[in-house]
Amino acid sequence: MGATGYTASESLRLLLRHPHVEITRLTSRTDIGVGVEKVHPALRGRVPLKFTEYGLEDFRGEVDVAFCCLPHAASSPIVRELADAGIRVVDFSADYRLNDLASFELWYKAEHADAARLGKVPYGLPELFRKEIREAAVVANPGCFPTTAILALAPLVAAGLIDPEDIVVDSKTGVSGGGRTPKLNFHFPECNESVAAYGVGTHRHWPEINQIVGRATGRAIAAVFTPHLIPMDRGILSTIYVRPAVGVTAQSALETLRMAYRQEPFVRVTSELPATKDVSGTNYCDLTVRELGNRLVIVSVIDNLIKGAAGAAVQNLNVMCGYPETLGLL
Amino acid sequence: MGATGYTASESLRLLLRHPHVEITRLTSRTDIGVGVEKVHPALRGRVPLKFTEYGLEDFRGEVDVAFCCLPHAASSPIVRELADAGIRVVDFSADYRLNDLASFELWYKAEHADAARLGKVPYGLPELFRKEIREAAVVANPGCFPTTAILALAPLVAAGLIDPEDIVVDSKTGVSGGGRTPKLNFHFPECNESVAAYGVGTHRHWPEINQIVGRATGRAIAAVFTPHLIPMDRGILSTIYVRPAVGVTAQSALETLRMAYRQEPFVRVTSELPATKDVSGTNYCDLTVRELGNRLVIVSVIDNLIKGAAGAAVQNLNVMCGYPETLGLL
Amino acid sequence: MGATGYTASESLRLLLRHPHVEITRLTSRTDIGVGVEKVHPALRGRVPLKFTEYGLEDFRGEVDVAFCCLPHAASSPIVRELADAGIRVVDFSADYRLNDLASFELWYKAEHADAARLGKVPYGLPELFRKEIREAAVVANPGCFPTTAILALAPLVAAGLIDPEDIVVDSKTGVSGGGRTPKLNFHFPECNESVAAYGVGTHRHWPEINQIVGRATGRAIAAVFTPHLIPMDRGILSTIYVRPAVGVTAQSALETLRMAYRQEPFVRVTSELPATKDVSGTNYCDLTVRELGNRLVIVSVIDNLIKGAAGAAVQNLNVMCGYPETLGLL
Amino acid sequence: MGATGYTASESLRLLLRHPHVEITRLTSRTDIGVGVEKVHPALRGRVPLKFTEYGLEDFRGEVDVAFCCLPHAASSPIVRELADAGIRVVDFSADYRLNDLASFELWYKAEHADAARLGKVPYGLPELFRKEIREAAVVANPGCFPTTAILALAPLVAAGLIDPEDIVVDSKTGVSGGGRTPKLNFHFPECNESVAAYGVGTHRHWPEINQIVGRATGRAIAAVFTPHLIPMDRGILSTIYVRPAVGVTAQSALETLRMAYRQEPFVRVTSELPATKDVSGTNYCDLTVRELGNRLVIVSVIDNLIKGAAGAAVQNLNVMCGYPETLGLL
Repeated sequence: MGATGYTASESLRLLLRHPHVEITRLTSRTDIGVGVEKVHPALRGRVPLKFTEYGLEDFRGEVDVAFCCLPHAASSPIVRELADAGIRVVDFSADYRLNDLASFELWYKAEHADAARLGKVPYGLPELFRKEIREAAVVANPGCFPTTAILALAPLVAAGLIDPEDIVVDSKTGVSGGGRTPKLNFHFPECNESVAAYGVGTHRHWPEINQIVGRATGRAIAAVFTPHLIPMDRGILSTIYVRPAVGVTAQSALETLRMAYRQEPFVRVTSELPATKDVSGTNYCDLTVRELGNRLVIVSVIDNLIKGAAGAAVQNLNVMCGYPETLGLL
Repeated sequence: MGATGYTASESLRLLLRHPHVEITRLTSRTDIGVGVEKVHPALRGRVPLKFTEYGLEDFRGEVDVAFCCLPHAASSPIVRELADAGIRVVDFSADYRLNDLASFELWYKAEHADAARLGKVPYGLPELFRKEIREAAVVANPGCFPTTAILALAPLVAAGLIDPEDIVVDSKTGVSGGGRTPKLNFHFPECNESVAAYGVGTHRHWPEINQIVGRATGRAIAAVFTPHLIPMDRGILSTIYVRPAVGVTAQSALETLRMAYRQEPFVRVTSELPATKDVSGTNYCDLTVRELGNRLVIVSVIDNLIKGAAGAAVQNLNVMCGYPETLGLL
Repeated sequence: MGATGYTASESLRLLLRHPHVEITRLTSRTDIGVGVEKVHPALRGRVPLKFTEYGLEDFRGEVDVAFCCLPHAASSPIVRELADAGIRVVDFSADYRLNDLASFELWYKAEHADAARLGKVPYGLPELFRKEIREAAVVANPGCFPTTAILALAPLVAAGLIDPEDIVVDSKTGVSGGGRTPKLNFHFPECNESVAAYGVGTHRHWPEINQIVGRATGRAIAAVFTPHLIPMDRGILSTIYVRPAVGVTAQSALETLRMAYRQEPFVRVTSELPATKDVSGTNYCDLTVRELGNRLVIVSVIDNLIKGAAGAAVQNLNVMCGYPETLGLL
Repeated sequence: MGATGYTASESLRLLLRHPHVEITRLTSRTDIGVGVEKVHPALRGRVPLKFTEYGLEDFRGEVDVAFCCLPHAASSPIVRELADAGIRVVDFSADYRLNDLASFELWYKAEHADAARLGKVPYGLPELFRKEIREAAVVANPGCFPTTAILALAPLVAAGLIDPEDIVVDSKTGVSGGGRTPKLNFHFPECNESVAAYGVGTHRHWPEINQIVGRATGRAIAAVFTPHLIPMDRGILSTIYVRPAVGVTAQSALETLRMAYRQEPFVRVTSELPATKDVSGTNYCDLTVRELGNRLVIVSVIDNLIKGAAGAAVQNLNVMCGYPETLGLL
């Protein structure tokens, strides 16, 4: 659903490679009746479908799992309907990510069509919430920036290695994160050859980082967060400045991350400084830790369209369906 | 007029450096009352004006020369009014470039508000039409692609060195050539990391190349022309494949270009293969010639926003006003 | 062999996805003993091998098919040794592409260590030489530019639809085509925000285009060819200007291409103008034809590292081994 | 001196526009006898000089002010010689920036040829050290990253508005900052479409930021600093996270910056979030302040080759020679 955007086309690309998935239906609110390859020319000859209007009756019996790529607030009415009808959903929107209705209303300034489900939907990072995802009717696919920050912070916060009140998350993202709708700030001659901060103090991934680290670790944190727009298609690098507890070094923090993720197929803890290009086109999150004066610096990179969206969704699908978690993703 | 676009902001940047120019008025059809720096943040603190609506009465007595950066068809009604009132105009649109009304109507599918002036307005390449520009009430500022092709071809056609019927102009342009209005094909994630041809067989600069080379040399030519969109801000490189007359070599063609432009301040004939970066931010056109089997290849580069638009306009202004032609441009 | 370059890393990425391939050995002339992920950090944790020095004895019994990614002239001595020892080779270099020793020596100014095999090695475009590739001991993996031009031209030349003496191939390539060795012309601040022609009249893919179209169709052609460097990582777009025979239209030429490739999994003939982004990360070649005055224009796009190198090699491997041709490539 | 690099070519470009400057000599250690346009093709026809070897005798009587663009440690022997001979120098290297010999040796691991002058050479930010620069024999042209940080921090530290021990400087730079020598990390296909942190904990601009803010304000600070490489030619954006003193707001901090720079021609304090593109090609530093939870965020942008190098040098030249400070720079 909402299949004309970048997260949808990336999902299609991945799902075409998945041995147990058949793509049967693509909905759009704007391009009804249009062939997929008109909107996604890279998929020429790959997906012989036309976009249809969403209707529950079309999904019953036909669809086991739905990927919902609609914007926030547009998503929850449909997710609710599908979930109530027994169709499992990976929801790419932010509608089910925050802890409660109050947070949602505060940050998204919108009504929520499915408030009753809020707080019961697992956050779709299998590395932290695998058990809940397995049985879930609905999974809240994570935000791209939060994925980089939460994977970096959760093990360190859980182990009490850092000051939970003194965390700066400075993130850099490629432009595909802004979606497929043309806007002046994503117009090539505006954002090419330029870098800018945006959403300072107002970006909705800020509370998501704090709430989910809290949920995963049982410890409240108060990170600050600033995103920046980088002239590249895809990739996020987050530079995270933390204050270590007494005796904690880059080496011990790195070791904690290694232990936390030693069996995770998609988190690579490394002693090298990772670049976003190292994970481009993959579902990996690469992490390292360095010392910098009286701080530690954690560097965390993902491909925003894959581990930050479509790949995470396929990983969640695999967990939900009991498939090997890496299926279609390596 | 039409001062919110890229050619306008580039003109402002150049004119601020011009010792004899005072910028007194900027008009817009959309941002009336808005401060310049809201639209062009690079000009913060440089141009303490707000955009106003166009009105002839505001120009009388105040404006000696107007730069009209409106789109085709929107330009000629205003240019006509100004010219009739004795205000000289450099018109950035295509309204006065083609030879006659029939060509304009065929290629632009629009009505022309000033057909009587068509054919009498000089084409604003001082290198070829300096004398006419000096006295002109209106100058048709050249198209960006035609500038590269006409400067390359005119001396060779005039000297009879090449077959006028066997010319291929393959052009590559940065995205700023598409203007400041967000569109899907200029959306960063669409055009970054990609190259595509466009307007094949339909681009309006095609007849402009042929007509102006004809006008400058008195010889009809039939070049074909294809533009391509390149993931960069600015710059045009045209690769021009021609069939030499018997005995004509790359060396003799190069020599003809050198002679033709030996006193021109903004055409640099070189034996190196020029890159668009060599002329970025400048009013230069760099040219060279090479042999390639039974063809000659002419490579021609400009900065599309300067020699292809704003710089050419300032050069025309200098010619019109009797200033040294390089004023504000080096 | 020669596993530290971009074509090698792209081959590794593809082969890791191939169900019948096990990667057992990677050789390098410079990084012996170094772990793969030091050179290719994107492969962290994926390929637990170190680069070794090449030695035939290491390959005997262990290797069924070798990918040789060495530069021209360095390749043939090793290819010869492997082939003589019964190990099949896909050779990425140009050593076996041209028709004869004289052409090789003329264009590559080097000695050939395996001249006896020249002319007997099939050119690795399965679309044109599938039968020969099936049984081959050595396959000459195609050059990236020639792939775009040959696939576009061969069916039209074979059918006699175009003038074989009047062909202009104007190609635009991403920078990865230049390899992984730092050089001034591939230094980011030199080639970013710039476009330039290079190798005009001297590029070695020029004779390759003409010879292979001749070999595939039995008709001699004399195309001219100019490559350009574009500020992007990957992708080639070739704009090919041809003179149609009497009565031939864009539509009939397009139909000829459609028929020629109707059963080919990796050539997509389309009526849209393709962009390199449409095939980025894939093994596809997308083609279309348009009319432009008295010419036809064929636009042909590939990913230079995939259909132009590593993907073609995997496709050849599949043909050589009797696997489904798309294995590991979709 | 050292005129083959990017800071030199940018200096030439600016100085050609300066009414009181004549360029008489360009030295190089590698390209002696080579014409300027071979190395800097953008300067074709602009600078009719060849590079010469450095020799003091050539400078005596001929040169009033020298721009020394040599690397650190290579610079001080020559600067010393020139200064001792009464020729004034703007030194682009880091040799005279730090407070003392111990700092230099610790961070640069090199011997200093002119230790006696260390600590007496003014730091070339006229906004903070104008008086000292006026009379100086040698000026230490600032580092690019420090320029963004020092201009942002100095007024706030001086006024006691922020905690001097809790400062994070996260900087993003275009690739031209890495110089003109090809290296793997600046190779286009490596750094394009990627972002990476580098020099974490080891970058030499880190102590420069702390020492110069200390020198300018009389208050010690302990900022941490991490630079990142961004796929663009030029521009630096620093995002600076500080802890405000009780009662200090973004608004009051912004007001302090406005007051501090109200008469400065090249610092623009704005309430908008500036992008590097806003200052590209200019000598401006644009600054703003925002609130972010319990922090303030200061965003500071410059063009690294202009305000971060060549423009700062011309500004220093103007101060040294008593010219209007904006001469050649607007």
